[in-house]
Amino acid sequence: MSRKRTKDRVRQRTTGRVEQSRWRTLENRYPPFEILREEQLDAIHDTSLSVLEDFGIEFRNASALELLEQAGANVDYDSQLVRFDRGLIAELIALAPSEFTLHARNPERNVVIGGRNLCFDSVGGPPNSADVVSGRRMGTFEECCRFFRLSQSLNVLHIIGGWPIAPTDLNAETRHLDCTLALLTLTDKVWFANAIGAERVEDALEMLRIALGLDHEQLLSTPCTFSVINVNSPRRYDEAMADGLMELARNGQANCITPFTLCGAMSPITLAGGLAQQNAEVLAGVALTQIVRPGAPVIYGGFTSNVDMKTGSPAFGTPEYTKACVASGQLARRYGLPYRSSNTNASNAVDAQAAYESSMSIWGSVLGHCNLLHHAVGWLEGGLTASFEKAIVDAEMLQMMAAFLDPIEVNEDTLALKAIGDVEPGGHFFGSEHTLSRYEDAFYKPLMSDWRNFETWSEAGGEDATQRANKIWKKLLEEYEQPALDTGIQEELEAFVSRRKAEFDSGVKK
Amino acid sequence: MSRKRTKDRVRQRTTGRVEQSRWRTLENRYPPFEILREEQLDAIHDTSLSVLEDFGIEFRNASALELLEQAGANVDYDSQLVRFDRGLIAELIALAPSEFTLHARNPERNVVIGGRNLCFDSVGGPPNSADVVSGRRMGTFEECCRFFRLSQSLNVLHIIGGWPIAPTDLNAETRHLDCTLALLTLTDKVWFANAIGAERVEDALEMLRIALGLDHEQLLSTPCTFSVINVNSPRRYDEAMADGLMELARNGQANCITPFTLCGAMSPITLAGGLAQQNAEVLAGVALTQIVRPGAPVIYGGFTSNVDMKTGSPAFGTPEYTKACVASGQLARRYGLPYRSSNTNASNAVDAQAAYESSMSIWGSVLGHCNLLHHAVGWLEGGLTASFEKAIVDAEMLQMMAAFLDPIEVNEDTLALKAIGDVEPGGHFFGSEHTLSRYEDAFYKPLMSDWRNFETWSEAGGEDATQRANKIWKKLLEEYEQPALDTGIQEELEAFVSRRKAEFDSGVKK
Repeated sequence: MSRKRTKDRVRQRTTGRVEQSRWRTLENRYPPFEILREEQLDAIHDTSLSVLEDFGIEFRNASALELLEQAGANVDYDSQLVRFDRGLIAELIALAPSEFTLHARNPERNVVIGGRNLCFDSVGGPPNSADVVSGRRMGTFEECCRFFRLSQSLNVLHIIGGWPIAPTDLNAETRHLDCTLALLTLTDKVWFANAIGAERVEDALEMLRIALGLDHEQLLSTPCTFSVINVNSPRRYDEAMADGLMELARNGQANCITPFTLCGAMSPITLAGGLAQQNAEVLAGVALTQIVRPGAPVIYGGFTSNVDMKTGSPAFGTPEYTKACVASGQLARRYGLPYRSSNTNASNAVDAQAAYESSMSIWGSVLGHCNLLHHAVGWLEGGLTASFEKAIVDAEMLQMMAAFLDPIEVNEDTLALKAIGDVEPGGHFFGSEHTLSRYEDAFYKPLMSDWRNFETWSEAGGEDATQRANKIWKKLLEEYEQPALDTGIQEELEAFVSRRKAEFDSGVKK
Repeated sequence: MSRKRTKDRVRQRTTGRVEQSRWRTLENRYPPFEILREEQLDAIHDTSLSVLEDFGIEFRNASALELLEQAGANVDYDSQLVRFDRGLIAELIALAPSEFTLHARNPERNVVIGGRNLCFDSVGGPPNSADVVSGRRMGTFEECCRFFRLSQSLNVLHIIGGWPIAPTDLNAETRHLDCTLALLTLTDKVWFANAIGAERVEDALEMLRIALGLDHEQLLSTPCTFSVINVNSPRRYDEAMADGLMELARNGQANCITPFTLCGAMSPITLAGGLAQQNAEVLAGVALTQIVRPGAPVIYGGFTSNVDMKTGSPAFGTPEYTKACVASGQLARRYGLPYRSSNTNASNAVDAQAAYESSMSIWGSVLGHCNLLHHAVGWLEGGLTASFEKAIVDAEMLQMMAAFLDPIEVNEDTLALKAIGDVEPGGHFFGSEHTLSRYEDAFYKPLMSDWRNFETWSEAGGEDATQRANKIWKKLLEEYEQPALDTGIQEELEAFVSRRKAEFDSGVKK
């Protein structure tokens, strides 16, 4: 091997880490964008209250029905329909906090949800994983853990958004224990708990309590996880979801209430109608959280999109979706609730379509001042696949958005009058003192964008963005460092998981 | 051949046209986004006036210097530096119209520049063309004409933005005549005239005059073309550009004054400084147009981006670029001038990077209420290549943006209260009368996005967005129909071109 090549390799080893933006919390200091006029917002609000008052929401959950009735809602036990009058809804919604902190096991990773704060979390839910070399496959626990490591490594991600890839090779009854243990050992960020049923929530909370070193009393006043409560739109909360919601609220943990109002399928074909229905469904769920525990943290989830009317399949990152993102932010702010949106697309490949549909989603969400951008990295195929390359493309788009949110600094120094005068017409600023003293950090540094000229890029192999993304996620995984966890805590968590698995094996239900 | 296959083929022939949005003019009815506070805008404005007053702008053009001096500017003939006092600048800028119509040879294609109007035009300037099958090659006249046809076919494009691909196989002295003839015969939209020197402008205007059937007097009050006047930043207007500017203004045609303020190279490394310099350079050019002809149409061109500080090469579609797009809109509105921005990216391939950088450019520009989005389709590699596939990806993104700009309709009908009540909890809206009566046109229909599920998509070949785009532009060219042109006019144009070419051959200069 020549001396030159040896030297190059050494340099690559020492300086070759993936360059990414540092971890930081984000504030959206620009004014929220508004596409609905005040009277239009009023009309949507009013319509949603009529839905709650006249038609009601179905809660397929006996305890929820009882609690709702006790709180003053009109409950029909036969149909399980709950009707709310306007005053009751207003009273209950007013109890929800407009901002709260989610505590990570590493306090440096705590995040504030609400106000001008903006958090990004990873994709949650896909049954499949994919990368461009190995293709698409059914999810496994190993793949899921790989995505956890990648999410821990990506500084732009504030939160792990649940199970990025379903661990279909694990026992369905106990996989939540394996995943929770993995989340607590492989990452130190806040994460999303599976809330299908109260039992899974209880297990997750007990493990969080151990990891954060809290007693039961402290846990109640320390929000440290959340879950997305999906409404089975139109107008239905199913039993397990309602259980999960109540269990989270009871323990002072956060619910993110998110109807799936796909216009033309699960909601009216018109955006105004879809938004009115979404709003009714969210408000009913928020009301329930406040009945269970006044002041419990809760997030307004917007997920209104449309179907492809040719095939009936969901479309994402469409102009309709983007408008719904902005409008849902207006609705959430009307109630003083933190707002969740998502980074979606319906592409089957990590290509230009995946990028432009995601861009539409991210822009709509950020302009709408979402506080939590869910599925922010990795979502592909309308959420059926978690893609490792898409995670890198998304991370780049999010880093760029974060940089866009840093306002332009305007002061004597940055206005650079003297520097402008010092360079002659037709000259250049490369050698100017004003440039030299700032060039290291003057501009956004990309994670994967390639700005070389065509010739240099071609000679180096002419890799497109997706091929480069493949190398970057692999490198990030190579560089991954497992965050420290106290050995005593680790052992306690493992013991808990073993005990609970044994209970499941022996058929004991808590 | 089976009967089924024959039938399918017939159907494809009859219904197989590329589905795209219809031609329409666009209005941006949302509020302009603002990222600079009023006092920050004032500071940038003030700094730019200090640049004009204290340092001056170089005009390498004797007639321009004379005109500027006569109008009251302080001219130093040795250095060719022109200094403007604040009052003079304010007076001259106030003469420029805030809105004007550009007349196409087909009056149905007329467009309004300014106010809330938004126009898209095609890429102008690249020396190369590319497609994914044939690769990248030096521009030819044939390729240029192919792109003209494609631009005519794409309904989302309002304007042909100049020569999309340099016709390097034609005589450099007379290629403007060939291109102008091609523009007037292959398209019926407004187009951008080459303004390097007064002679090219004169030829283009004479041909436009013939095509639109105007006399010389009428031409003066009928803006029907425009050109981008690039400032040779920092602070220099070269001779040919200044000639072009004056010739356009003299004839009542539009100038789009656009400095190339690449932060860290041709302007200060700070965005505030880059914007201050851009503003000074634009205002000087606008002032000259108004001296030549008070009320001459003129556009504020923003093109502030940054260099990659590692290599010195230009970066586009960056967060800095996006912020400059929004901020430049605030500056243009301050002066009541129409605003031009661009759809840029620095990718070498039609991939995710090309799409997300373009998205950043389009969003910044549209939020900044640009009136003319230049290079809106086809730009690749920082403008060195016109890509046919990128044109299709861009057209999709622009169609989506246009649909986003259609405000949400909120009325009793769209709020759909009754429709919501009519569908039972957990049911669906597919069969609802409210859905059925609207489903044909309820949602945005994509040009190239593929929303089929993974299995169907894979079985059909699993083509990514770029491969699909390749098929679409080819199909659009197959379907291209040359717009009608009166035979007399056609002959007169051809005769003019022949005469002018003969003059060039014999060395006669006008």
